[in-house]
Amino acid sequence: MITRPTHGGNLTWATQVAGSPVLWDFSASINPWGPPECAIAAIQAAIPELIHYPDPDYGVLRGAIAQHHNLDPAWVFPGNGAAELLTWAAMDLAQAGITALITPAFADYGRACRAAGVVLLPCGLDLHNEQRLEDLLPPSALLLNNPHNPTGKLWPVAELLPLIAESPCVVVDEAFMDFLPLAQQQSLIPYLAEFPQLVVLRSLTKFYSLPGLRLGYALAHPDRLAQWRQRRDPWAVNQLAAAVGAVVLQDQEFAAQTWAWLPSAREKLFNGLAAIPGLTPYPGAANFLLVETALKSDVLQLDLLKTAQVLIRDCLSFSELGDRFFRVAVRTEPENQHLLTALAHSLHRLTPNPHV
Amino acid sequence: MITRPTHGGNLTWATQVAGSPVLWDFSASINPWGPPECAIAAIQAAIPELIHYPDPDYGVLRGAIAQHHNLDPAWVFPGNGAAELLTWAAMDLAQAGITALITPAFADYGRACRAAGVVLLPCGLDLHNEQRLEDLLPPSALLLNNPHNPTGKLWPVAELLPLIAESPCVVVDEAFMDFLPLAQQQSLIPYLAEFPQLVVLRSLTKFYSLPGLRLGYALAHPDRLAQWRQRRDPWAVNQLAAAVGAVVLQDQEFAAQTWAWLPSAREKLFNGLAAIPGLTPYPGAANFLLVETALKSDVLQLDLLKTAQVLIRDCLSFSELGDRFFRVAVRTEPENQHLLTALAHSLHRLTPNPHV
Repeated sequence: MITRPTHGGNLTWATQVAGSPVLWDFSASINPWGPPECAIAAIQAAIPELIHYPDPDYGVLRGAIAQHHNLDPAWVFPGNGAAELLTWAAMDLAQAGITALITPAFADYGRACRAAGVVLLPCGLDLHNEQRLEDLLPPSALLLNNPHNPTGKLWPVAELLPLIAESPCVVVDEAFMDFLPLAQQQSLIPYLAEFPQLVVLRSLTKFYSLPGLRLGYALAHPDRLAQWRQRRDPWAVNQLAAAVGAVVLQDQEFAAQTWAWLPSAREKLFNGLAAIPGLTPYPGAANFLLVETALKSDVLQLDLLKTAQVLIRDCLSFSELGDRFFRVAVRTEPENQHLLTALAHSLHRLTPNPHV
Repeated sequence: MITRPTHGGNLTWATQVAGSPVLWDFSASINPWGPPECAIAAIQAAIPELIHYPDPDYGVLRGAIAQHHNLDPAWVFPGNGAAELLTWAAMDLAQAGITALITPAFADYGRACRAAGVVLLPCGLDLHNEQRLEDLLPPSALLLNNPHNPTGKLWPVAELLPLIAESPCVVVDEAFMDFLPLAQQQSLIPYLAEFPQLVVLRSLTKFYSLPGLRLGYALAHPDRLAQWRQRRDPWAVNQLAAAVGAVVLQDQEFAAQTWAWLPSAREKLFNGLAAIPGLTPYPGAANFLLVETALKSDVLQLDLLKTAQVLIRDCLSFSELGDRFFRVAVRTEPENQHLLTALAHSLHRLTPNPHV
């Protein structure tokens, strides 16, 4: 039996379903420009070091992350992907009480919260109207995603701060924040010192295109992180990931290239999607777009796989969205053009002609 | 501040303390013959795949492990090192009730059990006299280590089975079992189908010399593993580790080489240690030896670091042992000889002359 995945990037599943390889993966929201050369060089240089255990203090890695964010290393907790860190963050939310979660929400939030015994209060996002966060969320513990997945909606810091001030614990997953040019980022990292109840989660493998390597980090008060350290084994981050994390944040050229590409590539993709009959893209600030479709998304997904080797992310695991939404990563212009052509063909073929 | 590590292989700590690099690491019990060529080739081949997420089902990896042990893949749960799996195993022990643990015990057992809320019943091993397990352990949940770390003691399957039959949950860490020639192994893997309360943990990075890569697995009833899967994120094993795990178990030449080396190398090292005044090695079945010393082990450790760039494992984190024990890995003959020479010099220099 082939189980439908609850996340993008599951090429094993897609290949089995389609009977042909996925050549164009828009289902995982990964930077198309990476990995940077410095990352691959760091991996190659660290392979001989695999005969040793990682440094359980991860001093070099934590130092590099701390320097990048202008923090003391005691505020940095590296993880085996941001997803691992969500497991420990959920335990803090469980202690803090009922936790509000904006829905639709990334499926693994539910997994981590169930495992930790978090009582979740789902707060449904209105996709069609602007909402202020204070109208959407109660004063309680919070599990947030900024920019939000799958909508790409970006919450301004000014709306977040009053909610944090009133909350016993706030976990903000900023897994896609680094895709925004610095001036547009709405990160809570500068407010960590002010709010000991705040945890910020970041990923290093979406922006740097290494999701198979697993690397993320949490930023929070050192007392909180000392407790987290007791929850897991001492060597959660492999040596190669630690070596990559120690260098990539200094690669300003790579970051500049990504920031220069995304806004216009996303705008062109948005316009191209909007021009296809039967598709309605939603504006988003991250490196992906949520799209409403006149067809069932799994039917469209399968047709794209079989006819164009294109994988889109159906949004069936975001249950509140129903079965007429999909999500696509923004990729390079030739790739985005291939996606648009494939989508136009599939929709044309699969949509009953109203004039017949 | 430099915190004394609770595990071997912490070269960062040792280098800082000694002020010189560790050239001879006997503190981590890693196979000196690896990594095998097939592992490095698998890593190199998988680097381009790092742009994709790992397959959350880890179908290829689980298939290879299952085939090696003649099990169905549903009984296999890969982990980010055996240490990660201990975290989830401890949660099962917490539900099963008071858990007996043979002491001295690997320090991370305490960490995992505290985190899960396990009530531990320490059962002190008699280092000087033979004990039957039934006299040492009560009928309760059990967390065992076979071969035992740090003594290297091997418990026979025949002594284990009656205890398992009476227990609500038994977690057996067989991290070093693969170092024993097949005919001498006392693995519980063949008894998994008989005992749904049994969990076996295995490591793949000690025998294959890749502790920096992180890879281990649990073997247990599929219903239990389905629960474990909810406890952690979907991509705990990185792509490179998964690629290595898919090939190394088939490398029979590498295994044969290791099995041919260990018994005689260990015997020679044992005899060499026993011949040094002030040292008393204990017989062990694994790829390390526990040694009692007339000197304080941290004093001896520091002297070896500074004078011979040799790192031994002080056993201070095994608190029941006190401060006069250390542990050394069995390595190649030239390395073992260097260790023996360095130990003899240090002991001679540091021991007060009884004739003066």
